[in-house]
Amino acid sequence: MTTDVATKRDFLAMEEWGDDGIAALLELAARVKRGEISGGLEKKVMALVFMDPSLRTRSSFETALFLHGGHAVVLEPGRGSWSLETEPGAVMDGDKVEHIVDAARVLGRYADAVGVRAFPRGDDWSVARQDRVIRDFAKYCEKPVVNLESARRHPCQGLADALTLQEHLGDPRGKRFVLTWAWHPKALPTAVPASAGIAAAMLGMDIVIARPDGYELDPEDTALIRSIARRNGSMVTIANDPDDSLVGADAVYVKSWGSVKLFGRPEEEAAERAGLRDWRMTQPRLRNTRGGRGIVLHCLPVRRNVEIDDAVLDGPNSVVVDEAENRLHVQRALMLELLK
Amino acid sequence: MTTDVATKRDFLAMEEWGDDGIAALLELAARVKRGEISGGLEKKVMALVFMDPSLRTRSSFETALFLHGGHAVVLEPGRGSWSLETEPGAVMDGDKVEHIVDAARVLGRYADAVGVRAFPRGDDWSVARQDRVIRDFAKYCEKPVVNLESARRHPCQGLADALTLQEHLGDPRGKRFVLTWAWHPKALPTAVPASAGIAAAMLGMDIVIARPDGYELDPEDTALIRSIARRNGSMVTIANDPDDSLVGADAVYVKSWGSVKLFGRPEEEAAERAGLRDWRMTQPRLRNTRGGRGIVLHCLPVRRNVEIDDAVLDGPNSVVVDEAENRLHVQRALMLELLK
Amino acid sequence: MTTDVATKRDFLAMEEWGDDGIAALLELAARVKRGEISGGLEKKVMALVFMDPSLRTRSSFETALFLHGGHAVVLEPGRGSWSLETEPGAVMDGDKVEHIVDAARVLGRYADAVGVRAFPRGDDWSVARQDRVIRDFAKYCEKPVVNLESARRHPCQGLADALTLQEHLGDPRGKRFVLTWAWHPKALPTAVPASAGIAAAMLGMDIVIARPDGYELDPEDTALIRSIARRNGSMVTIANDPDDSLVGADAVYVKSWGSVKLFGRPEEEAAERAGLRDWRMTQPRLRNTRGGRGIVLHCLPVRRNVEIDDAVLDGPNSVVVDEAENRLHVQRALMLELLK
Repeated sequence: MTTDVATKRDFLAMEEWGDDGIAALLELAARVKRGEISGGLEKKVMALVFMDPSLRTRSSFETALFLHGGHAVVLEPGRGSWSLETEPGAVMDGDKVEHIVDAARVLGRYADAVGVRAFPRGDDWSVARQDRVIRDFAKYCEKPVVNLESARRHPCQGLADALTLQEHLGDPRGKRFVLTWAWHPKALPTAVPASAGIAAAMLGMDIVIARPDGYELDPEDTALIRSIARRNGSMVTIANDPDDSLVGADAVYVKSWGSVKLFGRPEEEAAERAGLRDWRMTQPRLRNTRGGRGIVLHCLPVRRNVEIDDAVLDGPNSVVVDEAENRLHVQRALMLELLK
Repeated sequence: MTTDVATKRDFLAMEEWGDDGIAALLELAARVKRGEISGGLEKKVMALVFMDPSLRTRSSFETALFLHGGHAVVLEPGRGSWSLETEPGAVMDGDKVEHIVDAARVLGRYADAVGVRAFPRGDDWSVARQDRVIRDFAKYCEKPVVNLESARRHPCQGLADALTLQEHLGDPRGKRFVLTWAWHPKALPTAVPASAGIAAAMLGMDIVIARPDGYELDPEDTALIRSIARRNGSMVTIANDPDDSLVGADAVYVKSWGSVKLFGRPEEEAAERAGLRDWRMTQPRLRNTRGGRGIVLHCLPVRRNVEIDDAVLDGPNSVVVDEAENRLHVQRALMLELLK
Repeated sequence: MTTDVATKRDFLAMEEWGDDGIAALLELAARVKRGEISGGLEKKVMALVFMDPSLRTRSSFETALFLHGGHAVVLEPGRGSWSLETEPGAVMDGDKVEHIVDAARVLGRYADAVGVRAFPRGDDWSVARQDRVIRDFAKYCEKPVVNLESARRHPCQGLADALTLQEHLGDPRGKRFVLTWAWHPKALPTAVPASAGIAAAMLGMDIVIARPDGYELDPEDTALIRSIARRNGSMVTIANDPDDSLVGADAVYVKSWGSVKLFGRPEEEAAERAGLRDWRMTQPRLRNTRGGRGIVLHCLPVRRNVEIDDAVLDGPNSVVVDEAENRLHVQRALMLELLK
């Protein structure tokens, strides 16, 4: 029942698997989606640890495991199971009843793989950006750990984004991918936009990141997207206009995220965001895209008529439901690969 | 992975399947219960969306799927998954993070069928009675949608009631079914009593609806029960005495429900209900039934010694546990039929 | 679908299965762990009713069922399903919407076995110690009931403790088992220490129970441990020093529990406990064990650096992760035995 922790393979971030590793995974996902692969996860158990809520991730992983003969055990610490301490060396005389070290070790004995969702916490981005919960889980768990969205990355979403781009654009290489910020009533994490940018860069797309001033992604993530794009022969541009940035777009990825600089200061952040409600994807804005036919992506859940108008979501440009469906197929491929 | 929404078949209300459709389903359920059918749901996934709590529905559906090779994914929006917006066209800048339209579309891509439980909300019966949550879910989901209890109907319960009546009464045609109101500390929905009345009418039973004045079912539901009874050659009587109404009953269906007229006005409703605690099923009252041997049904959960006395529930007239077990068998039949 | 309640077999407490019954179960668990037994639970459903939270129990049972072809349905009354009334004869006009009698009967129709977790409630130990929730569930459910931790017993944990002792000590007969109290911010139940003592006594180990004065286990449990030890030729000693008690220990079971005398009086109990934070397992203390190599057990979740120091938990003496893993294997054996 034990695995050599040193040699096990996690899926914490797309960039850690390399361009070839991701390309192979996407090819497998396409074959899985065409129904070419059955079975492969018999007697395999994946524990899904949700420290934050989920609909798509949970449903799609549970279905993915089942379709290939496996089973997902869903745990929600603090709701139905114990709340977890994440500080190393903590004197645990407060409310947290179990340390993540022990949860990781134990789940690694029951399950063949463990998925973990843990959104950023606290009020200090320099701490939150270290993504310690998912990193520690991977460190102490002897089985493969899958990132179900951490402070910095949502690589399963990135995989689904990539497969969707491939399906709708043919070869995405050299095509134009616009990641555009949207207003939202809350300051959301940057894991999804960072992962979408990384995914587009790994596909060799030219990337525009459009956001109001003050809403830059973490500089390390922007630099990473640039470096991946460079090695794939494509370029990254930063823009700050919600209309002009869309010109010539083949794909528009709409997403809200909070100011990293004001992380953990919700009142200030809300004030900063207050004048930006015009950053919303509307049908007229789509006319700026290539031939007016640029596809629109969003990871869901989406705030209708706030991030994206009904007319866009329910219109012909939207591929958000395909994108959500692709979560299922990329995760089937991922688990087949991780547990083969 | 796509289905023609126009031709898919939902199970939202028994009356929509017609007398013959329901009769065939009950026959299949009886065969399933006798163990004559194995398998049939291999690789099939049903998503169960509970916007309100459940014990029987969840356990019985999860078991039903498993016994035939399938799998149920259980989602609880607002608890573990996102809370859902139900208003069309809403500008979603409040607390609700996902629109039912998108949840319905996405779950329809992951699952082969989707079950939805959504009790009535708000304070306006003219709105709640439109049963929009379950209707919208069915409209936007490309896979069959099953009603796990909505504002107006609980058709899986109605099926279980019908199978139980058939098992204990032989041919129920022309036998006497008394649906009798009971006091309860809360104003409960009318979905169960409406569905029980519809089930009894579809079986051709003579129906008595006994309730205090002011506790009429929604007039449209009463009219529907009357029209189904009429085409099956049976009759519907309204009564308002908790003793006399039981005379000659072959089956007594005990159930509490709130005043539709005072829907969403809990204080007024509680005051209206205050003097009605005598509407309780007691052992002496059962002597009024046919030969004192009328069977007693209740959908459960039941408030013991409030709706029905211990002596009745634990005595020989009660078939409530058989009735609960039948939820399993009718749902096995339903899913075999919907996903065949 | 019905079973003769009189002849069904529950697993509520290890002592009820006798020394031979437990020995056979442990032998089966060892074979299961070695991978010698596959299948055996096809089409079998176990309902797991958690009235209190769980990580290990839930994950390990769900995995156990799945690995042998079965399925676990997880219910959390009060969170996702109805909250349960436990008083016999209650007039249920308060908050509780379902009686345990009905839940037990219904789940016994859907599932082939039912597991129940119910920690002690209320402020009267003379009532809580009767363990009525689990006893009533077993009484009214027609299928085998498994105790997932009640007020008095956690027999699945006891089984895992026993298997771990066998694995690490060879034949545990005559070896020294020290059950030592630890400080904890909350007054915890005594089910785990009582069950650990019973397990060690059934293995024929010499037992030391070390606890501060005022922290005696329930006298009936201590007497039971003594009587089981006596018939197995071993002895039980009570100690009240956290250092001396460890001398010569082959195994140290660290566990916190609340004062039974101050049950349900949390402020008084906390005051009583206040001066006892030195009851903590440290690396220096382990030097007192046999050759400094006494193994350290704990049921988890553990409060790190409060009950046990990081140095101990992460050091070579600790077997807590093996012990947690063994929950899986003993439960696989248990369910194979109960449902064969």
